[in-house]
Amino acid sequence: MRILGIDPGLATVGWAVIESGRGALRPIAYGAILTPAHTDIEARLLMIKSDLEAIISKYEPEEMAIEELFFNTNITTGIAVAEARGVILCTAHSMGVKISEYTPLQVKQAVVGYGRAEKQQVIAMVTTILKLKSPPKPDDTADAVAIAICHSQCRGSAIGKFYNQR
Amino acid sequence: MRILGIDPGLATVGWAVIESGRGALRPIAYGAILTPAHTDIEARLLMIKSDLEAIISKYEPEEMAIEELFFNTNITTGIAVAEARGVILCTAHSMGVKISEYTPLQVKQAVVGYGRAEKQQVIAMVTTILKLKSPPKPDDTADAVAIAICHSQCRGSAIGKFYNQR
Repeated sequence: MRILGIDPGLATVGWAVIESGRGALRPIAYGAILTPAHTDIEARLLMIKSDLEAIISKYEPEEMAIEELFFNTNITTGIAVAEARGVILCTAHSMGVKISEYTPLQVKQAVVGYGRAEKQQVIAMVTTILKLKSPPKPDDTADAVAIAICHSQCRGSAIGKFYNQR
Repeated sequence: MRILGIDPGLATVGWAVIESGRGALRPIAYGAILTPAHTDIEARLLMIKSDLEAIISKYEPEEMAIEELFFNTNITTGIAVAEARGVILCTAHSMGVKISEYTPLQVKQAVVGYGRAEKQQVIAMVTTILKLKSPPKPDDTADAVAIAICHSQCRGSAIGKFYNQR
């Protein structure tokens, strides 16, 4: 089964498509959608929509996993990230991709086995699990890979079912 | 010129189309996009996108005015509102509608002449300005009318130019 992992953002949307099956995970493609600063937000949102449509059309993921948002740090950035996230949810749903959401804690727990893991530990584990030659760049892409891996582990399990019963 | 005013939300998106020209404002149509509770957010976002596309296709506004978001009250609701707002911005831009943003303070200032006006004052003024038989319902629709009126007043003025230079 093909899973699309998404780390939402306005300037950078990390994305990763992995194939999960017969106990193994295989990277298909990963990268980041980048939008230019000093550009109207509506134009940046439309770029995200168009690029995501192209990614979904090309790699045909059946399910998408995306990080939940919490606004405990930068509220102003948070609004823009939520606006981008809305466009991402709407676009994936309109293309028939089933959506699941995970908290950063769940992602770290699934990938590193420890909910308070450091970012570098997550990146190292992601690189090891998918047997990549080098860590995915930028960090948003590594995060997207981690979210996809988290979903591959959680989707059949009780925790996955619990968290996906929204 | 036709202006679409939008009061963003996930459960309720207030909208109003007014015609502005030769010193007069004329109501064309107004209402609210409602999405059902207990439904996945991605499905609700897609309903908003579809309904907004239908409104823009039918009434052909050239410009859209939408309220800016501030998260000083309910952060959890705020995330969902921002997600809906992202979809609204993206959809309008994809259909060639020029977008302007206003703060609640600017809207009240433009409609009532006083930035800290009560909601009921805004609704009463909106009803008077457009010579409506009764106040637009729900309140989100009245807010959307107010935002459209605000844009009709600000778009040619220094304050409008200033605030639209994002």
